Amino acid sequence: MSKKIVIIGAVAAGPKAACRLKRLRPDWEVTMVDQDSLISYGGCGIPYYVSGDVSDESELRATSFHVVRDAAFFEHSKGVLVRTRTRALAIDRKAKTVRVENMDSGAQEDLPYDQLMLATGARPFELPIPGADLDGVFTISDLHKAIEIKKRIAQGKVSRAVVIGGGAIGIEMAEAFTDLWGVETTLLELQPQLLPRLVDRHFATMLKQHLVDKGVAVHTGESAEVLIEGDPGQVGSVRTGKRTLAADLVVMAVGVRPRSELARAAGLDVAPFGGIKVNQRLQTSDANIYAAGDCIALTHLLTGKDTHTPLGSLANREGRIVADNMAGRPALFHGVLGSFIMKAFERCIASTGLTLEAARVEGFDADCALTAPADRAHFFPDQAVVILQLVFDRRSRRVLGLQAFGMMNDSISARVDAAAALIAKGGTVEDFGLLEMAYAPPFSSAIDSINAAAYVAENLCDDRLRQVELARFLQWMEDMDSEPDWAVLDLRHPVEAAPYVDKFGADRWTALEYGQVRARHGELSPDKTYILMCNAGPRSYEVQVFLDHLGTVDTLVLCGGMNVISRLGVDWYIR
Amino acid sequence: MSKKIVIIGAVAAGPKAACRLKRLRPDWEVTMVDQDSLISYGGCGIPYYVSGDVSDESELRATSFHVVRDAAFFEHSKGVLVRTRTRALAIDRKAKTVRVENMDSGAQEDLPYDQLMLATGARPFELPIPGADLDGVFTISDLHKAIEIKKRIAQGKVSRAVVIGGGAIGIEMAEAFTDLWGVETTLLELQPQLLPRLVDRHFATMLKQHLVDKGVAVHTGESAEVLIEGDPGQVGSVRTGKRTLAADLVVMAVGVRPRSELARAAGLDVAPFGGIKVNQRLQTSDANIYAAGDCIALTHLLTGKDTHTPLGSLANREGRIVADNMAGRPALFHGVLGSFIMKAFERCIASTGLTLEAARVEGFDADCALTAPADRAHFFPDQAVVILQLVFDRRSRRVLGLQAFGMMNDSISARVDAAAALIAKGGTVEDFGLLEMAYAPPFSSAIDSINAAAYVAENLCDDRLRQVELARFLQWMEDMDSEPDWAVLDLRHPVEAAPYVDKFGADRWTALEYGQVRARHGELSPDKTYILMCNAGPRSYEVQVFLDHLGTVDTLVLCGGMNVISRLGVDWYIR
Repeated sequence: MSKKIVIIGAVAAGPKAACRLKRLRPDWEVTMVDQDSLISYGGCGIPYYVSGDVSDESELRATSFHVVRDAAFFEHSKGVLVRTRTRALAIDRKAKTVRVENMDSGAQEDLPYDQLMLATGARPFELPIPGADLDGVFTISDLHKAIEIKKRIAQGKVSRAVVIGGGAIGIEMAEAFTDLWGVETTLLELQPQLLPRLVDRHFATMLKQHLVDKGVAVHTGESAEVLIEGDPGQVGSVRTGKRTLAADLVVMAVGVRPRSELARAAGLDVAPFGGIKVNQRLQTSDANIYAAGDCIALTHLLTGKDTHTPLGSLANREGRIVADNMAGRPALFHGVLGSFIMKAFERCIASTGLTLEAARVEGFDADCALTAPADRAHFFPDQAVVILQLVFDRRSRRVLGLQAFGMMNDSISARVDAAAALIAKGGTVEDFGLLEMAYAPPFSSAIDSINAAAYVAENLCDDRLRQVELARFLQWMEDMDSEPDWAVLDLRHPVEAAPYVDKFGADRWTALEYGQVRARHGELSPDKTYILMCNAGPRSYEVQVFLDHLGTVDTLVLCGGMNVISRLGVDWYIR
Repeated sequence: MSKKIVIIGAVAAGPKAACRLKRLRPDWEVTMVDQDSLISYGGCGIPYYVSGDVSDESELRATSFHVVRDAAFFEHSKGVLVRTRTRALAIDRKAKTVRVENMDSGAQEDLPYDQLMLATGARPFELPIPGADLDGVFTISDLHKAIEIKKRIAQGKVSRAVVIGGGAIGIEMAEAFTDLWGVETTLLELQPQLLPRLVDRHFATMLKQHLVDKGVAVHTGESAEVLIEGDPGQVGSVRTGKRTLAADLVVMAVGVRPRSELARAAGLDVAPFGGIKVNQRLQTSDANIYAAGDCIALTHLLTGKDTHTPLGSLANREGRIVADNMAGRPALFHGVLGSFIMKAFERCIASTGLTLEAARVEGFDADCALTAPADRAHFFPDQAVVILQLVFDRRSRRVLGLQAFGMMNDSISARVDAAAALIAKGGTVEDFGLLEMAYAPPFSSAIDSINAAAYVAENLCDDRLRQVELARFLQWMEDMDSEPDWAVLDLRHPVEAAPYVDKFGADRWTALEYGQVRARHGELSPDKTYILMCNAGPRSYEVQVFLDHLGTVDTLVLCGGMNVISRLGVDWYIR
């Protein structure tokens, strides 16, 4: 028996569900409504459209075979009916109808449904600050805004931009402005770090330093307080608590909020943060109403808590699950780890699972293995250092997360995606040590970076490796008197160590090359705690184990070593 | 209580075990013996040394901090004793001694051990053909051979080379000769395909075509029968069953065999193929003797059978397991999937788990989802097609393997490594559909290629997608009368379809653009079976579902479509 399906929202989850459903149930009538005229676009591609990497906005709305996905395409190729410029006003759950309004004609109508899908997405949060309504102030809410921003830049109307918000979209927009268009760009983030909650502080710091190296002015712990008019009606500058920044263009990218008003008004369960509550079949509290995409609350696979993970990739997967369940083919969506990746100029940063900070907040006995190996065989020409951090629970030895910062290529995808696969299956540090990464020198090391990180985690769990946390070490470098007995023991080549010995004095920065330790350890002081320093960490660990065996000298390993330090932009680092 | 450990073999598994053991048990006496003077080298890097990507052989023996790993390094930095140029002659298990001989002095000695490790590696198989002992004929058995080969090429003594063996090493060597040195190179493989057992036939064919495009002459189903003398004592040509190839240099890369003579002579269990049998703790049949690396038999995680997987990456992981168990820290090595990856000029090819052919031989109800999507967002500038094949068991829906062929970057690593992680945990096609790949347009599609392949697999399992196997289709293209009722239905843009319609006639190659099917399906003949053809497969599947619903026209989908066909080098493909 044919059924009527209505889908509200036609960007990602909606179209995916509609098309899958028409394949599963070709005789059902599937109607999508969307208030926009442009639908089914790759919103995540907006920064690349603005930057010029994607030359025309229609490419974001086209199939891989270069046909634009407009209403006619859905009707003729997919058999899906589409009403654009049509707003859903209310759901009558009893009558099973949706009241919609044509935004051009103003005509209203009740669309009957057997099953309804809410794919209403999320809207950018707009800072309630003076001047937010000035011309030249944008959120990245849809393609129209992106088209307008690009037009202004291309017309030479933008020489200075301020991006408010140091999340992924803000950073991508800052890169787009700076890199291709040479717009003088400032990035503001209210939190003390970029990518808050997505990565731990030191990863954010490495990213910030790279942005600064590439010409973006970055101010963390600082946000816009007032947007000031320049030309009449136009934004002219941005005032923060600390400075005033001239700006022809302001982008607000301070996060998004689920669009759940319709669901709430219809009496459906909504999480406190606004995400529509769904079960594993993605049904709302009304079994005839499904929801998917940026408007829902998802379960975090590690914490079991509600989380908001607005990503086009998840929206598509969820859309397929909705279609399966609507069609009577049971399918479950278990939850998310929050895998995240982004390009930032010549670097890539990614994470999956929990950060160390989040894991501790959640009550795990969390620790982390911070490593800095080569991203492929260290003798292979294109190799480069990657910073990798495995977060794990010391008690259960379960891996909770992985973060990575390295060169802009796909090597970080490989580690983060494999990690996500294994974390979702409850993988332990031992599982990660055995993870069978495909090996050849152009792609990986014989001991892959992810295996190596797991080995460090094992050594930490077994209390064979004692580390000083990076933040504590950096604090000490700012105030060495805070631990008067500490000294760095630099195990690198004497040529590498010498400038630091000169700068800090041999008492605070002692040089003893790795290969000499077994012969010359007698020179070390039994009254000190040596912070062991090498480039990546393994030499330091080896020396710690050796000195522990002798039992005369106290040490702590700085995991990740100079490879991490050199990326943090600390002022005492000697380039 | 201090123990004496003897390790026979000092290339990969041996050194890893030795160093780990000294960290776990600093007071134990660990001795490595090796018959070579050069130890602890990255053997997998040999082709890149020969090609010049790695400029000096010492780089293959150096740490990431540029110290050469020679006997002195192991002694001074690691506390491990090393005897190079020392051959192990026999094991006395009762007395717990190893008889060794210094190859320079001829002096023999018995080394006592508490625990012994065999890390004797594998030796290249030498074809027993006439002329195999001529000068200029090499196996890739150690660094000395590599040094000699590179010297000859650098001196301009090699203008034509023949590589016997189309496995990974043979292909890598053929690339090294052709790409950097411009040596006219022929690659011979006795089996009907390159990379036998590692990938299915069509993947090997795509690789072969790329090698041919890059100037390597490739002959499959053909091997060397006689090596013919040129200059006195020197190889001058290679005779196969079909031709005689002039050659200044011949490389035999026809596989390796475990070096297990010592183990066998000592009465240890050895698998029929020669691999030393070990349990999950990597103990041999003598609990005091461990073995690891290329000399052992490993358990395949999917078949449970003995397998030989000689890879430096596994050798290192196994070495660590041996050290842990020797030190009294229980550690298990569960088995392997046989993950494999290689660079071939501008392409990358990889696999994990079982090929379709192997899975069927093993008795699985195996099928495969062959796909040809973009390797990142299809609107992103650097995107390129990747060919991906998921092998799965229709009954259990368990995923058995993944193969990939695409551009030379790390995107294939990302898919194969994530797949290996999930297959090892028993992942089903549903798990692969939900696999949380980190998404941003520079790295992946919103529906990642691995998720998309899983969706195809689901549709196959559910009998919603009926495919024609590629081999069967290619056979039909050679002899269309073999199925007189078949015709291609080309759903691509008319401009793409037109040359094929011209070539084969509209009766055999019918064009009907995807977007027109719902309007014009009445033009199709109910008496035919249409092979649905598009670029990648999804349009064909969609049309099949639609036509099935009408029930008037019979169809089969050619999964992967023209994106696969165009890479196979078939003569009817129109460039």
